[in-house]
Amino acid sequence: MKLSKELVNDLPRRWTRIRKQMELAKADACLLSGTENLFYATGMVFSGYFYLPLSGDPLYFVKRPVGLSGDNVIYIRKPEQIPEALTENGFELPDVVMLESEELSHADWCRLENAMKPARAISGTPAIRIARSVKTAYEIGQFKLSAQYHTEVYNQIPSLYRPGMTDLEFSVAIEGAMRLKGCLGMVRVFGTSMEIFMGSILTGDNAAAPSPYDFALGGGGLHPSIPVGANGSLLESGKTVMVDVGGNFTGYITDMTRVFAIGDLPEHAYRAHQVALEIQNRIVEMAGPGVRAEDLYDEAVAIATRNGLADCFMGAEQQAKFVGHGIGIELNELPVLSTRSNDILEEGMVFALEPKFIIAGVGAVGIENSFVVTASGIEKITLSKEEIIRL
Amino acid sequence: MKLSKELVNDLPRRWTRIRKQMELAKADACLLSGTENLFYATGMVFSGYFYLPLSGDPLYFVKRPVGLSGDNVIYIRKPEQIPEALTENGFELPDVVMLESEELSHADWCRLENAMKPARAISGTPAIRIARSVKTAYEIGQFKLSAQYHTEVYNQIPSLYRPGMTDLEFSVAIEGAMRLKGCLGMVRVFGTSMEIFMGSILTGDNAAAPSPYDFALGGGGLHPSIPVGANGSLLESGKTVMVDVGGNFTGYITDMTRVFAIGDLPEHAYRAHQVALEIQNRIVEMAGPGVRAEDLYDEAVAIATRNGLADCFMGAEQQAKFVGHGIGIELNELPVLSTRSNDILEEGMVFALEPKFIIAGVGAVGIENSFVVTASGIEKITLSKEEIIRL
Repeated sequence: MKLSKELVNDLPRRWTRIRKQMELAKADACLLSGTENLFYATGMVFSGYFYLPLSGDPLYFVKRPVGLSGDNVIYIRKPEQIPEALTENGFELPDVVMLESEELSHADWCRLENAMKPARAISGTPAIRIARSVKTAYEIGQFKLSAQYHTEVYNQIPSLYRPGMTDLEFSVAIEGAMRLKGCLGMVRVFGTSMEIFMGSILTGDNAAAPSPYDFALGGGGLHPSIPVGANGSLLESGKTVMVDVGGNFTGYITDMTRVFAIGDLPEHAYRAHQVALEIQNRIVEMAGPGVRAEDLYDEAVAIATRNGLADCFMGAEQQAKFVGHGIGIELNELPVLSTRSNDILEEGMVFALEPKFIIAGVGAVGIENSFVVTASGIEKITLSKEEIIRL
Repeated sequence: MKLSKELVNDLPRRWTRIRKQMELAKADACLLSGTENLFYATGMVFSGYFYLPLSGDPLYFVKRPVGLSGDNVIYIRKPEQIPEALTENGFELPDVVMLESEELSHADWCRLENAMKPARAISGTPAIRIARSVKTAYEIGQFKLSAQYHTEVYNQIPSLYRPGMTDLEFSVAIEGAMRLKGCLGMVRVFGTSMEIFMGSILTGDNAAAPSPYDFALGGGGLHPSIPVGANGSLLESGKTVMVDVGGNFTGYITDMTRVFAIGDLPEHAYRAHQVALEIQNRIVEMAGPGVRAEDLYDEAVAIATRNGLADCFMGAEQQAKFVGHGIGIELNELPVLSTRSNDILEEGMVFALEPKFIIAGVGAVGIENSFVVTASGIEKITLSKEEIIRL
């Protein structure tokens, strides 16, 4: 385990954020074992549990891998050993312990709840998601690295196209370029509303395929077992191909969409694309600390409606009811820019904004970029040409 | 929704398997919503719930996508609508309902348990895993298709190698070949003990890296957020490179490992590889319906020990305690060929057998193939050259 000094210094800032939520929930301790939360709280992934008391040093209860060292590392075989290990190490047993209600399976929750008795277990996922929603300066640096690599690959995309390709072949070329640049491939997703391989490359009417998943636009996919993304269509003249691949280069995922045209598109497709850019630019003007996420969504819908595009905004037959979402270790973090969101932007939040339209017979148009909320507004970190690029 | 007639005819066979477990557990109904279980029970993935009563037709409670049709499809917005919808459709409310204790998050379980009250919710995951462990003829056909594509790609691997490549570059080339052949990329995994991108390509000492995950050999990975697989090592003369990529071409994953040599290897590496083949061949002789999975593991360990290789069997510093595992919609199904397994082979089970050794300073050697349990033995379905291939 060789964590950088910068990362080691950053972790206590994250613990402070979690502890603030623990105080609000009147929890004495928090016990985390979900991969995404372990990575957040420790900078690494192990099989075991991270124990954070309200004050004092945390403990790392590790089952695997062998070989981790450190004052706070305690090897265990099973969670039932945690209370005794706490006592042996001079820790008071908690009265109220926060567990991950939405990362733990029901079976794992019950086992952990029993192991920690007589402590009372309370649901911790909403609190931890709030803690994670405001990123530290170090985390924002990781996003900026991801964004840089992500952008470099997107700039290569036109050179990866060959006439006569299918959407799958184009996907594979882009996936390979992403991986060679260091993309880790896996896209972590919170909850059960989505799952995805590296991202989606959608052409023509596949962009409008109604999806079981909660994506802006999902695509039908190659097989009913994974109904998302490319469906094997030829990239044909007069259609768009929308590239939306997750930029997980650092454990922090940037999200970015660009639209390419095979040959010329009908004029109304270009116009709708300009409306998407107008939505983006208007939200950039509006957004900043204290702004309600719901207001940003409402403004996006208002612009779409004013331009006669409400019916094809964020889908056609099935429309997503958001225009942006927090990003981080998972693709779908807080805040959510949607109609029923209570989220309010804070400095340090990072989110993707993705106004998109379905143009019947053509495909999707629109844009997606990743933004950091600054002290005075928002900063775009995925920087590449935003016009539709002719392949 | 266009399911093939063959698939439509197969689904009731799977329901019969689930119902047998429901009877044993004294459940009146089963409610499934995990992606893997929906795909098993319905041949597709949707956002919603599959309701299987002990007798009579099942119901599909669908939230998304729009547009599914069929007599048994009922659109709902939330699970709280299920009891009323059951009554309206002439179904008796169950007294005992089986829910997915290990696929549902604790929060989702609680919500569903409350929604279904006064029915008593019981844990269904172990039962459903048993149901899924014996595959139908149709499912075995899907495995054989996966195996065929998987093998075709593995046969291309030597042509993808270029001197001076890193393990990542070699990975990317293999991933691309898999995807172009139709591999869906995603590897579904049961539980929280593992996560992986498409598979692992391990060279040299990276093969021995202790892993937080429960893989035979995991590798250290490129980044602490996903500590598995290639770590950026150069493919150097005198080392092996072990290719273990999941063959998910049909929703059913075949598992297959082959070892390649850069230049010549020391003699003891070839010898250990032969011992792995000997373990495989001995288990092929022994295995068949009624055979205890534990006995197969013990036999593997006995052969490794007899050859002085116990210390490097299935890892070095950290050793996996299994030599094979069921495969299917998820990479880690039943049966488990391990020391504490109670599983007994049955006709129709499908498993991967993967005796592997770590050779210090060289890398991993060994083999992995996928097998179907037949009426009289086991049948290998991943058929390609098993010797170490010199690149």
